[in-house]
Amino acid sequence: MDTLERTVPLVRFRDEQIEMAHGAGGKVSRRLIEGLMLPLLANPALETLSDAAVFPFNGSRVATTADAFVVKPLQFPGGSIGELAVNGTVNDLAVSGARPLALMATFILEAGLSGNVLRGEVEAMAKAARQAGVFVVGGDTKVVEHGCADGMYISTFGFGEVNARVRLGAKEVREGDQVLLSGPIGDHGITILLARGELDLEASLTSDTRPLTPFVDALIDAAADGLRWMRDPTRGGVATALNELVRESGLGIVVFEERIPVRNEVRGACEILGLDPLHIANEGQMLVVVSPERAEAALTAMRRTSGGEGACCIGEVREKPQKTVLGVTTYGGSRVVDMLVGDPLPRIC
Amino acid sequence: MDTLERTVPLVRFRDEQIEMAHGAGGKVSRRLIEGLMLPLLANPALETLSDAAVFPFNGSRVATTADAFVVKPLQFPGGSIGELAVNGTVNDLAVSGARPLALMATFILEAGLSGNVLRGEVEAMAKAARQAGVFVVGGDTKVVEHGCADGMYISTFGFGEVNARVRLGAKEVREGDQVLLSGPIGDHGITILLARGELDLEASLTSDTRPLTPFVDALIDAAADGLRWMRDPTRGGVATALNELVRESGLGIVVFEERIPVRNEVRGACEILGLDPLHIANEGQMLVVVSPERAEAALTAMRRTSGGEGACCIGEVREKPQKTVLGVTTYGGSRVVDMLVGDPLPRIC
Repeated sequence: MDTLERTVPLVRFRDEQIEMAHGAGGKVSRRLIEGLMLPLLANPALETLSDAAVFPFNGSRVATTADAFVVKPLQFPGGSIGELAVNGTVNDLAVSGARPLALMATFILEAGLSGNVLRGEVEAMAKAARQAGVFVVGGDTKVVEHGCADGMYISTFGFGEVNARVRLGAKEVREGDQVLLSGPIGDHGITILLARGELDLEASLTSDTRPLTPFVDALIDAAADGLRWMRDPTRGGVATALNELVRESGLGIVVFEERIPVRNEVRGACEILGLDPLHIANEGQMLVVVSPERAEAALTAMRRTSGGEGACCIGEVREKPQKTVLGVTTYGGSRVVDMLVGDPLPRIC
Repeated sequence: MDTLERTVPLVRFRDEQIEMAHGAGGKVSRRLIEGLMLPLLANPALETLSDAAVFPFNGSRVATTADAFVVKPLQFPGGSIGELAVNGTVNDLAVSGARPLALMATFILEAGLSGNVLRGEVEAMAKAARQAGVFVVGGDTKVVEHGCADGMYISTFGFGEVNARVRLGAKEVREGDQVLLSGPIGDHGITILLARGELDLEASLTSDTRPLTPFVDALIDAAADGLRWMRDPTRGGVATALNELVRESGLGIVVFEERIPVRNEVRGACEILGLDPLHIANEGQMLVVVSPERAEAALTAMRRTSGGEGACCIGEVREKPQKTVLGVTTYGGSRVVDMLVGDPLPRIC
């Protein structure tokens, strides 16, 4: 989810027409959000600016988030649009420090869609909701003519209460904080690409789609007072998420490139396509910025969580270079890791 | 919005494929909701079952609602998809007795959509949100290839706090309660039909899209303890909304047909098309069921609200015929007013 930001200098939206890149989550998407949505819709109700909008309500902090899902194909190894729709929203709430309380979903269905395909996706949503411990409390269904949608699009809305023990946000991040990553990156994006048959490559890769709530619960238990910022690096990947952080915080981040776990299949596909794994979408990984004092405890908590065995520290926050993510290697090489530009992998969520 | 119901006997969803009628809000839509969505997603979190899901949170009652908008064309006399997306969600909250606090929106944009058209709709949303006194706090944007959507689809999610003075629901309705209507019906549906040029008819009709919050505020001020049930009769029209009420309450409703305000243009178009104005969608009207003692006060409150001058009492709740809406005329005629069947007017919201 893209929330409306006030902390970043505004750009102008003058694009004559919408291109695929406007939905890719990278630089062009931000021009749309910052140049068009924000100036028109901005308001003082936002307390913090992250993957979910957080605002005070009756003595607690409430987080809400909204996501549209247009993934193609509807089913792919390791998941499907229905599962993704629940996990994506649950995860936006989780990385905001909120326990998901209720979900709602809207379905835009294409006339002619198989009843069994729809049933399969509603079942996938129900299963994912049970796993995340959240209820789907309502929704809406519209049907458009054959040809006016690709089977189905799902939008999901989530609502949760922010844990009172955490205070997360780009402005909470300090020099010296450590950057943790829950596991290997790029599995989701490359899985979708392979499922579309766009690459003549055999790989036993599956999407990493899963709820991040167990990780967040473990992190809050182990290191609540050290948690500064959390994010699930979906569209635009780890590079885009960290670039958003440095832009909002005004600080810099150094990423130790060799420490970033990337499966061989993902690395291979990225080499063929000329893509950076840091730009590939994930649906079950999270980035955590934590105080140096709490970094070890946080890392241990993640590694003890099922599926978090590969968690690692991939970088740290530095004062300079300001608003920049720098990738460094043990050989002494360094490069600027930029946000995603364009849309090399459309419709991956 | 269709919430998940437990009070109505379940039907089976065995439809082989999705048809336009599954999105029309009538009988076929209910088969999809009750036969597929409900059994899979049902949960105990719902306190009441209405246009918004209401659940307890930190000592108050929170209402949430979700709506997808696929109206064609995007702009029409009196409104546009952006305005509709805000008003529709604001109104679902309003008729649940909730003051809208925050909205979120997802956009599914078609590649090639004009930047100016998008700007116009975001402006329309901002304006409608200001009028309703609610903030848009976030959202999400996805882009699909040219041909995979009709310009844009918008889903809107709303969150509000239910006024502590009201207790609304089908189960609160009693024999003798009066049924009030805020004004003329069918303007929205017929306006969309004419805007699509599907009917060779000239008419100066405009959509009735508007926020219902002023009506709800006035009603709560004047008759809070008498309010039993409120609904904005959108897809499926007044007939479908009242049929939902009788099914959920187990009571009957008699509607005095001559009292129902219908503009000549709407009546004329309905005659040509063989449609019942009671089945045509509205986007700025509301139905109110109120105790007989408070009916006069409620009606006066509605009439004093700007745009409510045409409010009237159109019927009353009776013990029999159970679960039936009966239309009667002063000549002594009577007919069963059923839910909408099929989808005579697709994509009107």
